[in-house]
Amino acid sequence: MLTHSEYLGIIEQNLKDISYPSHPAGLYEPIAYILDGGGKRLRPVLTLAVCDALCGDSSKAVSQAMAVEMFHNFTLLHDDVMDRADMRRGRPTVHVRWDDRTAILSGDAMLTLSHVYSMRGCSAEQMCQVGRLLDRTAMEVYEGQQYDMDFESRNDVTVSDYLEMIRLKTSVLLGCACRLGAIMADASEEVAQAMYGYGEKLGLAFQLQDDYLDTYGDPIVFGKEIGGDIVNDKKTWLLITAMNEDTSGVLAREMDAPSENKIERVREVYDRLELDVRCHRLIDRYVDEAKAELAKADLTPAAREFFEALAENSRTRSH
Amino acid sequence: MLTHSEYLGIIEQNLKDISYPSHPAGLYEPIAYILDGGGKRLRPVLTLAVCDALCGDSSKAVSQAMAVEMFHNFTLLHDDVMDRADMRRGRPTVHVRWDDRTAILSGDAMLTLSHVYSMRGCSAEQMCQVGRLLDRTAMEVYEGQQYDMDFESRNDVTVSDYLEMIRLKTSVLLGCACRLGAIMADASEEVAQAMYGYGEKLGLAFQLQDDYLDTYGDPIVFGKEIGGDIVNDKKTWLLITAMNEDTSGVLAREMDAPSENKIERVREVYDRLELDVRCHRLIDRYVDEAKAELAKADLTPAAREFFEALAENSRTRSH
Repeated sequence: MLTHSEYLGIIEQNLKDISYPSHPAGLYEPIAYILDGGGKRLRPVLTLAVCDALCGDSSKAVSQAMAVEMFHNFTLLHDDVMDRADMRRGRPTVHVRWDDRTAILSGDAMLTLSHVYSMRGCSAEQMCQVGRLLDRTAMEVYEGQQYDMDFESRNDVTVSDYLEMIRLKTSVLLGCACRLGAIMADASEEVAQAMYGYGEKLGLAFQLQDDYLDTYGDPIVFGKEIGGDIVNDKKTWLLITAMNEDTSGVLAREMDAPSENKIERVREVYDRLELDVRCHRLIDRYVDEAKAELAKADLTPAAREFFEALAENSRTRSH
Repeated sequence: MLTHSEYLGIIEQNLKDISYPSHPAGLYEPIAYILDGGGKRLRPVLTLAVCDALCGDSSKAVSQAMAVEMFHNFTLLHDDVMDRADMRRGRPTVHVRWDDRTAILSGDAMLTLSHVYSMRGCSAEQMCQVGRLLDRTAMEVYEGQQYDMDFESRNDVTVSDYLEMIRLKTSVLLGCACRLGAIMADASEEVAQAMYGYGEKLGLAFQLQDDYLDTYGDPIVFGKEIGGDIVNDKKTWLLITAMNEDTSGVLAREMDAPSENKIERVREVYDRLELDVRCHRLIDRYVDEAKAELAKADLTPAAREFFEALAENSRTRSH
């Protein structure tokens, strides 16, 4: 196994080495722009690390790692248009820097490019498995985004609706990233399934921690303002649980006619219900489930340690 | 060979038989809506007919025909958002009937579904060829759309720029549709290339006839109002040629400050330059080139007649 930052280095180098056609610039420049914007590269690192763990050679999965990062950034590009998000990773989003139609078209091209990458270096058998996995995952991600948008105008969203939404929108792509590594390592179906399960549970812990940090994070460390979800009445696990349990009426009032101190008022409701502690209890459960999946994959101690550390990080991270 | 309307019937039946998941409705209903909107189904008919012509069994290429129709409608969905088009085939476009973000997300899903269809019924060798062809074609179509958008704000667009743009935006997908049929029939590379060339030339003739009809068509038969391209200063072959040759200043004045009779004034310029006749001379050339490609494909007389009739239709059609 390499270290996390070594896998990251491979991804960054490969992203830097992409050579785009120079024309039409309006199509390719936004792709380079969003891929150059940084990010954790969690998904492609998972693909490389899983492949390495299962066959001792991460290079077999480099193209599939690129495919999954390309796909992820395509979803960000289009989601930012759909959600009217102006900033991403400290920079203007593509539809702000250029315009909506540029973001739509360049995003389309990134989805196609992710297919191009996914096929590279595949045997016939692998190509079939990779293609099916990516297509199924993509449909699930779209379904998750659709549910997320539907939730905005719904007032009957349950906690389990929410967990299913983030499973589709976020987790399945982490599961897919892991399974891609397993496919490229020619691992058994049993092992591939365990690594998919690991990624999926990791994704749930990861997204819940993201929601947690949006309310309870340190704005300096988190890298963006705190309370955005509260201001926007974003139906996260925190808000949905509070809507079910708050009897003070504060929450309903703040959502109906926000006061100047809405963030503070809502956080007081959350605190009274001990949602910070309870949210972390849920995250702990998913981290434990992720680790349990690892146990089924028959990994070397070094590999197991690598993936356990990643899972641990999803609950302790502050940015 | 079957008749054109028999191939069309196969496509319509297969489109009708698609069963979409019921949830989330916001993702799948727009897909059913746009696919149900009719259209000539020219691309999937080409795929079936080429496969039938080359191996006597169109059923081998039904999934790939669906893939190409799904891809085509995905591009229409997204193009309509980018071009702010309100109507298509006599009905409100998806972004009007729903909203922009629905059109974006449902379009994304259609691109992924086109990949799902494209892989069905393929041998390993076919899957590889089909995947590469669709991805390359998709990138070319995006490039064409980008050039088309770029042209709006450019005043130095040449006729050859324009022809390259419509080759990318429209023709390569007709070439791709033909080649998909050849791949699924296990035809030789030489024959596949000839059929691709036929589709590409057919596409050029088809698009030029579309531009011609937008200015010279009969609104009742054409199914939409005439002169939209003129009103919008759309840089078609007609306008670009006229911009190069008109010395009267009428065209420049009408583009700068349109009069009430802009359509009539501009058409007078076109008529004086005999652009209707000259446009059809160009269409004739592409129809002839399309037919010349057919000669390389070693077709039965019946098959050759079928594809020649299609090519003829592209210059004589009035809608």
